[in-house]
Amino acid sequence: MTTTTIGITGMTCGHCVSAVQSELSELPGVEAVDVELVNGGTSTATISSSAPLDAASIDGAVAEAGYTVVPVAS
Amino acid sequence: MTTTTIGITGMTCGHCVSAVQSELSELPGVEAVDVELVNGGTSTATISSSAPLDAASIDGAVAEAGYTVVPVAS
Repeated sequence: MTTTTIGITGMTCGHCVSAVQSELSELPGVEAVDVELVNGGTSTATISSSAPLDAASIDGAVAEAGYTVVPVAS
Repeated sequence: MTTTTIGITGMTCGHCVSAVQSELSELPGVEAVDVELVNGGTSTATISSSAPLDAASIDGAVAEAGYTVVPVAS
């Protein structure tokens, strides 16, 4: 099991959360997607997968939902 | 043709707009729904219908979408 955490900007509500969860869940190997919404800031998504995920695939899925991946503050 | 304008609070994004438009469009006689989004404030919906709409029906449709009807500033 691999866990990947990303930041996402532009999300404002539960509909946005659902859109992101839906797109990320379609990636091969993804088993769970947990999104913490921060309206007006950087939301975070924690993705559990059976193998490490390709960053470009994650970026593409989030873009498909209409949002942008940003680095998470460490 | 009747035009009804209402205020709606709690909407933040285009998904919210779609949800409200979908519910209001299902009311009998409704021919068009135009929503102006104000994230963090009072959004407005202008509803065109073939006959005057019942206020309770409008309130119910907006509530079904997850939001609240408020008076529009005149």
